[in-house]
Amino acid sequence: MRIAQVAPLYESVPPKLYGGTERVVSYLTEELVRLGHDVTLFASGDSETEARLVPACDRALWRDPNCRETLPHHVRLMELVFREARNFDVIHFHCDYLHFPYLRRHATPGVTTLHGRVNPHDLQPLFEEYGETPLVSISDDQRRPLPGANWQATLYHGLPRGLHTFRKHGGDYLLFVGRISPEKRLDRAIEIAHKTDRQLKVAAKIYDEDLAYYRNSIEPLLRESKSFVEFIGEVGGKDKDELMGNAYALLFPIDWPEPFGLVIIESLACGTPVIAWNNGSVPEVLVDDETGFVVDTIEDAVKAVPRVARLSRQTCRREFERRFDVTRMARNYLEVYSRLIDGVAPHSVLSSGDMEATIWPTLSHIA
Amino acid sequence: MRIAQVAPLYESVPPKLYGGTERVVSYLTEELVRLGHDVTLFASGDSETEARLVPACDRALWRDPNCRETLPHHVRLMELVFREARNFDVIHFHCDYLHFPYLRRHATPGVTTLHGRVNPHDLQPLFEEYGETPLVSISDDQRRPLPGANWQATLYHGLPRGLHTFRKHGGDYLLFVGRISPEKRLDRAIEIAHKTDRQLKVAAKIYDEDLAYYRNSIEPLLRESKSFVEFIGEVGGKDKDELMGNAYALLFPIDWPEPFGLVIIESLACGTPVIAWNNGSVPEVLVDDETGFVVDTIEDAVKAVPRVARLSRQTCRREFERRFDVTRMARNYLEVYSRLIDGVAPHSVLSSGDMEATIWPTLSHIA
Repeated sequence: MRIAQVAPLYESVPPKLYGGTERVVSYLTEELVRLGHDVTLFASGDSETEARLVPACDRALWRDPNCRETLPHHVRLMELVFREARNFDVIHFHCDYLHFPYLRRHATPGVTTLHGRVNPHDLQPLFEEYGETPLVSISDDQRRPLPGANWQATLYHGLPRGLHTFRKHGGDYLLFVGRISPEKRLDRAIEIAHKTDRQLKVAAKIYDEDLAYYRNSIEPLLRESKSFVEFIGEVGGKDKDELMGNAYALLFPIDWPEPFGLVIIESLACGTPVIAWNNGSVPEVLVDDETGFVVDTIEDAVKAVPRVARLSRQTCRREFERRFDVTRMARNYLEVYSRLIDGVAPHSVLSSGDMEATIWPTLSHIA
Repeated sequence: MRIAQVAPLYESVPPKLYGGTERVVSYLTEELVRLGHDVTLFASGDSETEARLVPACDRALWRDPNCRETLPHHVRLMELVFREARNFDVIHFHCDYLHFPYLRRHATPGVTTLHGRVNPHDLQPLFEEYGETPLVSISDDQRRPLPGANWQATLYHGLPRGLHTFRKHGGDYLLFVGRISPEKRLDRAIEIAHKTDRQLKVAAKIYDEDLAYYRNSIEPLLRESKSFVEFIGEVGGKDKDELMGNAYALLFPIDWPEPFGLVIIESLACGTPVIAWNNGSVPEVLVDDETGFVVDTIEDAVKAVPRVARLSRQTCRREFERRFDVTRMARNYLEVYSRLIDGVAPHSVLSSGDMEATIWPTLSHIA
């Protein structure tokens, strides 16, 4: 199959450090190549891949100090993709919805994985207009605000098996990995560590827009908790693997409907159970009292901490291998691609010089 | 002529208060209707116009507290515009560059007025790709970073003659109108007022992203200057007219290449001379020692203040009527539209179902 993967240009594929979407695009792309497919990756020029790379800009936009507007680059990305559209059997988009109007007017089937939170107020009118555009959700919870869209499947993210080392025994510390933004609730993690008399390690990234929050709310907290909280900053690679693998448990105390927390399955891949708030994809990804605990309050989280010791780290790893492995993800996407390719006959665009909309038949929902 | 005007959706057309681009689109649209043309305006649903309004969203996005993403609405705007493209003789875009790939693939001529600063690092690759797209600059200075683009003309903004009241005599105070952002240099205006022992009135808008700057740099300054600086906040309509008309002089102490400062011609329309820094469009818009003074330093600005008394307010008003009147702007645009309509034969898009790029001949530059 000739497959195009279209990544956003904010980070490289894979990203140098943080970048959930770009990481998943990387894992999927490399696995599809490994499975023998002819893959073209549209991404930033500093990406690394076994696929054929079409660079849509020199370097990742968020790594480029001279970049002030990201949209021009993504508009040009559209030109690059659709100029070659007829060379692909299917095009898989990971860059939100900029491509919807073009996709409607092309014969090549396309599917779009939505990676972020679906904000119905802004997306509803657009998604109603493009009701025929095939979509993939990354959790059932993610699609709830737009139930009528043309969802092809919920496909959970997957990671390469070798990415994280399974460790039979964890250590004693609690772990918080992610972004320091208000909805991630690092303050809850600190409180839980305090109340259970455990050390908390914090491997976190502070984005520019979170600086005010960090300075006003988190920095004071870290200062007064420094006897038991160690702030590490951004980690990747081997350091992250060790940090996660040696943890007693990962804390994921979010108070927003995160569509899919990659950090959860990274933790499971190490064998480290997860204590997470009951939001977003959490109840779909974790199995309560098996791979972690799904809680609603600080009290419940505090009660869950000692109970982690009774869980099997082996079970966590097995769950990762069974449900969140990259080969499983790639094969699921290949099924979606095949259905799209088979299910749709090419329509010809009117030749009057106008771009009449070519409406794709709505494919039935596949669970 | 059947003309489409495509406005950005951030503010309504016209905007409730601030919104340079949307104001100009409004003036142009209403004047074209007045001149007898068949005009369709694509804008937010709370816009008001004598043209036919196609609402691309319910209300101005920046006035909508529920709006978190503006891009989905603009993507849908593209669909609405290009679905009707064949019904127009020409389409005039004011919403940056999102439409470039579509325009290339349509028979209807289009022209784009760039309203903002041209940031070459991000725009160069895109504008090189779409080298054929006809553009209009709002000052010669604006186009300098992209000399090779398909510039059709520099067309200065224009205002309706009745919008501002010409006042033969100004008052004594200096005036600053605009945005409180670092590059507007309100601090310079305060210093000038201080050094010339005059009152300064400040009619200014503080955007969210400028809050930190306002609190750290400006608020302290305003506090210590409050004996001679009056902070008024955002003004519009009659209040603004009176404020500008009764001023001794407008201060425009920018230190960035502002492509066109509407406030300058508003001031001239009132008869109020302008003391402005030599940046951006300033030397093209002001005539030194006639409609104001073009300066490079605080010292020069301070020397210019008493010299304003020798200038003729009548001359300022006449300059406005001659060069910055909306009818002149509309007629200039009609010339550009005509040349585009006449100069290009419709190309048919290939009928293979693909969107092959239809390349428009590059029109010669008209000054």
